[in-house]
Amino acid sequence: MLVKPAHALYDFLAEAGNNELSVKEGETLTITNRSIGGGWIEAQNSRGDVGLVPEDYIEVRNGLLVSAIDENVNLPLSKASNGNDPWSVWNSDPSGGADCDEWDDEWDDSTGGYPESESGEGGAMQRGGAHAPSMKISLNKFPGFSKPGPELYLLCKQPAKGKEKLTIYMGEVGPVWSYPETQLDCVVADPKKGSKLYGLKSYIEYQITPNTTNRPVNHRYKHFDWLYERLLDKFGSAIPIPSLPDKQVTGRFEEEFIKMRMERLQGWMTRMCRHPIVSCSDVFQIFLSYKDEKDWKTGKRKAEKDETVGVMIFTTIEPEAADLDPVEQKCEQFSRFTKAMDDGVKEILTVGNEHWKRCTGPLPKEYQRIGKAFQNLSSVFNSSGYQGESTLTDAMTAAGKTYEEIAQMVAEQPKKDLHFVMETNNEYKGLLGCFPDTIGVHKAAIEKVKEGDKLVAAGKISTHDKVTMAKRVSTMSYSLQAEMNHFHSNRIYDYNRVMQLYLEEQVKFYETVKKLKPRMAHYI
Amino acid sequence: MLVKPAHALYDFLAEAGNNELSVKEGETLTITNRSIGGGWIEAQNSRGDVGLVPEDYIEVRNGLLVSAIDENVNLPLSKASNGNDPWSVWNSDPSGGADCDEWDDEWDDSTGGYPESESGEGGAMQRGGAHAPSMKISLNKFPGFSKPGPELYLLCKQPAKGKEKLTIYMGEVGPVWSYPETQLDCVVADPKKGSKLYGLKSYIEYQITPNTTNRPVNHRYKHFDWLYERLLDKFGSAIPIPSLPDKQVTGRFEEEFIKMRMERLQGWMTRMCRHPIVSCSDVFQIFLSYKDEKDWKTGKRKAEKDETVGVMIFTTIEPEAADLDPVEQKCEQFSRFTKAMDDGVKEILTVGNEHWKRCTGPLPKEYQRIGKAFQNLSSVFNSSGYQGESTLTDAMTAAGKTYEEIAQMVAEQPKKDLHFVMETNNEYKGLLGCFPDTIGVHKAAIEKVKEGDKLVAAGKISTHDKVTMAKRVSTMSYSLQAEMNHFHSNRIYDYNRVMQLYLEEQVKFYETVKKLKPRMAHYI
Repeated sequence: MLVKPAHALYDFLAEAGNNELSVKEGETLTITNRSIGGGWIEAQNSRGDVGLVPEDYIEVRNGLLVSAIDENVNLPLSKASNGNDPWSVWNSDPSGGADCDEWDDEWDDSTGGYPESESGEGGAMQRGGAHAPSMKISLNKFPGFSKPGPELYLLCKQPAKGKEKLTIYMGEVGPVWSYPETQLDCVVADPKKGSKLYGLKSYIEYQITPNTTNRPVNHRYKHFDWLYERLLDKFGSAIPIPSLPDKQVTGRFEEEFIKMRMERLQGWMTRMCRHPIVSCSDVFQIFLSYKDEKDWKTGKRKAEKDETVGVMIFTTIEPEAADLDPVEQKCEQFSRFTKAMDDGVKEILTVGNEHWKRCTGPLPKEYQRIGKAFQNLSSVFNSSGYQGESTLTDAMTAAGKTYEEIAQMVAEQPKKDLHFVMETNNEYKGLLGCFPDTIGVHKAAIEKVKEGDKLVAAGKISTHDKVTMAKRVSTMSYSLQAEMNHFHSNRIYDYNRVMQLYLEEQVKFYETVKKLKPRMAHYI
Repeated sequence: MLVKPAHALYDFLAEAGNNELSVKEGETLTITNRSIGGGWIEAQNSRGDVGLVPEDYIEVRNGLLVSAIDENVNLPLSKASNGNDPWSVWNSDPSGGADCDEWDDEWDDSTGGYPESESGEGGAMQRGGAHAPSMKISLNKFPGFSKPGPELYLLCKQPAKGKEKLTIYMGEVGPVWSYPETQLDCVVADPKKGSKLYGLKSYIEYQITPNTTNRPVNHRYKHFDWLYERLLDKFGSAIPIPSLPDKQVTGRFEEEFIKMRMERLQGWMTRMCRHPIVSCSDVFQIFLSYKDEKDWKTGKRKAEKDETVGVMIFTTIEPEAADLDPVEQKCEQFSRFTKAMDDGVKEILTVGNEHWKRCTGPLPKEYQRIGKAFQNLSSVFNSSGYQGESTLTDAMTAAGKTYEEIAQMVAEQPKKDLHFVMETNNEYKGLLGCFPDTIGVHKAAIEKVKEGDKLVAAGKISTHDKVTMAKRVSTMSYSLQAEMNHFHSNRIYDYNRVMQLYLEEQVKFYETVKKLKPRMAHYI
């Protein structure tokens, strides 16, 4: 067996009890098995330790693993990798064949700051640079690694009408999507550890129960990621599809991390459920309410073969109103608004993060130390052997204990009030990050229509094409406005809720602080 | 005129408009006039700038200014230096002649931390290393730069009884000093800027009004320093005389600094007034209530010629009770207590200082930023052009404003409650720093008596001397115990007061915080 050295690209910290191998950036490794599957390879370090390392952590050339290992190496687990995990028999790439596990595993970059301080992984090693949650560019789905421009839709032959039809009505606030009578909702709960590869690899499975069927289905994080990719492909040109909560390589079996991820998956699912177009889509429905493995497999393959993706989604949109002239001004206004809100949200996240760190770190420690210092001096005074100390030392001890209570209150408060403010703003940061793309598609379409006469003169399009383009931009304008209105109403709902909760917790905090007063007053 | 280079020993930052010259440590200077007086010399730097520099900042050899200047240099201000300032005609050294100004000027080391953050001189240049307030060893007053041991008193011939007589009675708690019927008190107020050397040098003069005469007298900081030196010389072996508030070279004409110095001089004077022995002493009385310049000059000279100093103070102490066996155990207990209290006090100062800095610096800034972030987002929302924003934005603005109020409350609170805690503990830190010396004198005396038989056998002392020694150690024991009891009763009084004030301010704080609740609740 011929083995050649490979190199670790990043630090990787092994999970205990999970057959993983910690590696340091630049460390020389020997690949002992590149067919583990699930995004993992088996490697040996210079000390002879063997374990699993994420594939992406090993030096890659031309997108292929530089495994530096002979193709003839024996692959003892190559069959096992398609064994226990029902997901491993499907391929996420619709163009590829089935029966090979191409799923990424449950790790990816992690955002620094606030969530870390919660999950207690301040020093966690992360893959590559941290990035903010924003729209993921699904490179492998768009030929040539760039999105097709709106002309694909603007100039396409009238597509054969499918059963899909996304209606836009005129509401009080302007164009609105057609909202379902009962709003879909679901509960993400009950995370459970599962394993595959004969126990070599572990993962967390979540239970998702929709209010329609009230029957739970199980999904792993990577299944959510699959759903996200499908929704992004299909609706991303018309509807901002926020990224999933960040993938993270370390701590993914820690209780705190699982809790946080579940909470954020719940937030993401709730937002998707609330969207009238997303929630009614076949792919979302099958994800939430597949009846059995067969049903799911069929639905999954169908979703992957869906061709109404990218700008072609506009072919399914039918405004029930007269054609619109291009709404450049509204588009600009909305662009400015989302940009300003994005700045505002980021500022809250920045200062909130700093405040969170201070309130859970140095500040309560300081209050504790002050409390202890008062109590220590009180003890010293009690040892004086002089008469008449007790009134004084009682007061000093009480002041000291009050400081210790303040320490606890200060340390616990952010989890009560700031947490929800941060989570909501974090979600909106992700959502707002998608708008430039969605608005960009619209602006490009408007530009195209403006060029209409020139294109006709140059003989590139017919006069009929020009009329069609104008009609289709009108549809896109309706769509953008419907989405704007959906965004605004959701924003007001979400921020009202977050402010209510925040203010309630603040009031509770002041109620608690108030109780300190009579205690203090007792010694005056 | 022959001039040779001299060197600056420390950085010195010139006061603006005061004819001073900033120098850097190690900088080469030319002394242009060494006869300015008042502790100042005139120097020229390499750039040709001429100005006044504190004498002590220039390289000194054998206690003499290495002025590197010919003795024949003309001294244009040598007469002027004894002109306007009535203080300049007296000499603080009783062995020296009158009519030359040997006063140190109003500068010295500064402690870092808490007081600095108040006077806003974080980056101020300071002379030498900072030192904690503690008993100043008055080297030039004790021959050979070391204090005489207690044997000077233990073995002295019965000194001619003067009018001084410090009686000790047996009180409820044990030996106590004889307290005057009316407790002396004074008010330090009304700092005014004065000048001398034809306006070349400025200084601050404080008005001190004792409750006995109700007639104010004026004193500069250096006069307080003179008093401190006298009290230390006279009583230091029996009574801990705390150092004056720190001297400081920079910022001494800044309003905040003057206010702080005045407050601390008040604290020091109050403590001295409260001491039955110190307050009744001639030197303290003349300082507080001299009738006119002549009266003061006479009193000052007399004080400087007082020979009942150092351990000889014990010759004036007359316990009205039977002789005591040496009280080693009590002495040890008191030693342990003051050490433990010193540690406790220093801990409070350390954590208090940190807390002070946090509460006046980063914490309110953070609250302000959070407040601003909420209000900014609220403004963005108001610009949406969407209906139904106002309930939400009102709540967000209110939350933002509340944060700004919290910022102010947090920033102002330390001045209200922590300030007094810090000042009192700072004073006690200085006082406690004197106890090792005071207790040390007593322990040395006990050791001497223990050697009694050996000394008699060696023919070094007579049997009569041994009996005298035992009797005199008894007097010292009474004195120590009287001082212990004075310390304890004052400590309980001071700390009761500080805790009362502290708790009152805390209650006020919680009252204010409470008012935030209905404001918040209004939006729920």
